[in-house]
Amino acid sequence: MKKNLIVGQSGGPTAVINGSLYGVITEALAHSDEIGDVYGMVNGIEGFLNGQVMPLAPLKDSGELSLMRTTPGAYLGSCRFKLPEDLDDEIYQKLFRRFDKYGIGYFFYIGGNDSMDTVSKLSRYASVHKSDIRFIGLPKTVDNDLCLTDHTPGYASAAKFVATVLREISIDASVYSNKKSVTIVEIMGRHAGWLTAASALARTDMDPNPLLIYLPEAAFDQDAFMKQIQDSFKTMNNLIVCISEGIHDKTGTFICEYDSNVGVDNFGHKMLAGSGKYLENLIKSELGIKVRSIELNVPQRCSSSCLSGTDLNEAVASGRAGVRFALDGMTAKMVAFNRISDDPYALSYAPVAVDSVCNLEKAVPASWIIKNGTDVSDEFIKYARPLIQGSVDVPQEDGLPKFAYRRY
Amino acid sequence: MKKNLIVGQSGGPTAVINGSLYGVITEALAHSDEIGDVYGMVNGIEGFLNGQVMPLAPLKDSGELSLMRTTPGAYLGSCRFKLPEDLDDEIYQKLFRRFDKYGIGYFFYIGGNDSMDTVSKLSRYASVHKSDIRFIGLPKTVDNDLCLTDHTPGYASAAKFVATVLREISIDASVYSNKKSVTIVEIMGRHAGWLTAASALARTDMDPNPLLIYLPEAAFDQDAFMKQIQDSFKTMNNLIVCISEGIHDKTGTFICEYDSNVGVDNFGHKMLAGSGKYLENLIKSELGIKVRSIELNVPQRCSSSCLSGTDLNEAVASGRAGVRFALDGMTAKMVAFNRISDDPYALSYAPVAVDSVCNLEKAVPASWIIKNGTDVSDEFIKYARPLIQGSVDVPQEDGLPKFAYRRY
Repeated sequence: MKKNLIVGQSGGPTAVINGSLYGVITEALAHSDEIGDVYGMVNGIEGFLNGQVMPLAPLKDSGELSLMRTTPGAYLGSCRFKLPEDLDDEIYQKLFRRFDKYGIGYFFYIGGNDSMDTVSKLSRYASVHKSDIRFIGLPKTVDNDLCLTDHTPGYASAAKFVATVLREISIDASVYSNKKSVTIVEIMGRHAGWLTAASALARTDMDPNPLLIYLPEAAFDQDAFMKQIQDSFKTMNNLIVCISEGIHDKTGTFICEYDSNVGVDNFGHKMLAGSGKYLENLIKSELGIKVRSIELNVPQRCSSSCLSGTDLNEAVASGRAGVRFALDGMTAKMVAFNRISDDPYALSYAPVAVDSVCNLEKAVPASWIIKNGTDVSDEFIKYARPLIQGSVDVPQEDGLPKFAYRRY
Repeated sequence: MKKNLIVGQSGGPTAVINGSLYGVITEALAHSDEIGDVYGMVNGIEGFLNGQVMPLAPLKDSGELSLMRTTPGAYLGSCRFKLPEDLDDEIYQKLFRRFDKYGIGYFFYIGGNDSMDTVSKLSRYASVHKSDIRFIGLPKTVDNDLCLTDHTPGYASAAKFVATVLREISIDASVYSNKKSVTIVEIMGRHAGWLTAASALARTDMDPNPLLIYLPEAAFDQDAFMKQIQDSFKTMNNLIVCISEGIHDKTGTFICEYDSNVGVDNFGHKMLAGSGKYLENLIKSELGIKVRSIELNVPQRCSSSCLSGTDLNEAVASGRAGVRFALDGMTAKMVAFNRISDDPYALSYAPVAVDSVCNLEKAVPASWIIKNGTDVSDEFIKYARPLIQGSVDVPQEDGLPKFAYRRY
């Protein structure tokens, strides 16, 4: 008897996580000789535990499936839910009873390293308990911090967004070319600076901005920073500075925590205004010049206007590859990206042990961070440039992007 | 002898102010029988006073001209410079001597109401001193607050950006659909709420967000706001709230000024974190739920990814119309937009007295602000919807938008 397939999404959304979902669904439907029903978990493994399951095949006929491909966010909804370390915990029995109830033979989970942890634990439980369900992880994160893969779907579109917006912000900042100004742009990335590094792609022969780029992989020194700002004014008036949200000093203290105006809410949580705002006020206080800070914020991970064609194609292909790996009998694997060459850019998809991926983080290599931690090297540019190529036509209605909305 | 033309840009940049410039240059070059050289003031009237003038005809052959059409910012650079009220001030003599030096017969200034003030003063001086230079203002502002015109170039692209990003942010916020959350989006507009109102265009049949919209035209009440938030949670979990940066209470105090953590820099300036951040902390303190605030910031006025085709075409057309008005002998005029009909949308361009436009601000009509100041009416939607139609293909290079950079 044919086994059924279930797929879920987990962690923070990206612009192409639904591309991966689209890849899984279309490939599964194309293998109806081997795969029975195709189900979605609503709100990931947490929703599945609550019985939130929906059939996905009907989306094909309604046209939702093709619309989903270019919809940001997580069509199936997401969760942040960590399974217990103890595989004897009763939650596992409950989950596997539910898998049986739905006749599941193939399990797909699209997410970052926490989600790969889920895949790892489920596949280990299956191994111990002789379940033949195949568990496959599909990578996703704008942070690009997953190990054993050249890069991660979602990163390239976020990188393209960052570089595009930086080029525009620099144009905007240059209009009062006769007045000194600093624009600080705060970019996502608490531990890994991949996305902040992508701002370097914005530079042109005519515009050296962003001139200074600070990643969390290098310790941030406030005195050195102020000196770098003042030195930069010797050659230009309108300075763009990019920082990762997670920049910290050599003691590990986040820069935003130096804000003397930090309040505490009624629940005891610090109310931080962000490192960009802190540095804006620092420069304003010390130099008295025009400074503004811009936090790129969630549009970085959900913009459909700057989708990378390469990224979306790879997300779809990774979903399809995952289904084929499962049909080939594989389990406990994540679909990894192997770069075959930079120019012409070429990629292959390969299974890696999900146990080796989960709960680890891949940082920007130290050798790619140059000029006393204020810039990234040409190696980074060579790595990142191919990823942002190609654009995507997003369906429009009434002048705005048209998206797929889950009706469940 | 043929007179020459000079054009400048002033005030904050927009995504289509270079479209207006493109319109002026192409129309001027097309009338080479009547118009001699075509000059640009670099950094507006302030740069002109310092002798910063560049010839613009060479841009046609270099390809810069067509690239300029889709480049955000202000190609010629901008200034914030108010001419003295006293027309006997020697600055006017200096300016008109310079006009004579360059053989200027046609003067174009692209900007908001401060820039129209410049056009007004120069044309009044010309009238008193029998100068035959023709002074024409071309409207520009993302704020859409110019009087005597249906709308203003730059507004529609900013509105399309706001509505697009809001639709994406709402998708992003919905992924943890089982948890309560508030997302506060702060939108440009210190005195006029046109741009914040545009967020209402983001709504779909499947998504009522942004549910609450607050404009500076209505007094903001913090207690009522907290009640509106709590009431909204009765029907939905993920709430998007849009506010204008300039929301204030009935005493006129900006909401961000209520921040108890406001610092003062060494120059005595208050360091405000913004109304969105303040309300984020207020909700977090009182309700203890997940809240985030997003300031859309300068990308609102410089995004090339969300250019409205209607906006860009109208900006170009307004520049062209201005040149024709000047050739017809008009002076002291601004090119205004008259809406002929909503559906099908049709527009005509007409000269209005620049003296009647300058230094005034057009607010969103009180009757368009509904539901106790938490929403905008269908009249607004009917007004704004046609403006965001159509997209623009921006030239790309290496995966990013390609822009024109002034070499002067």
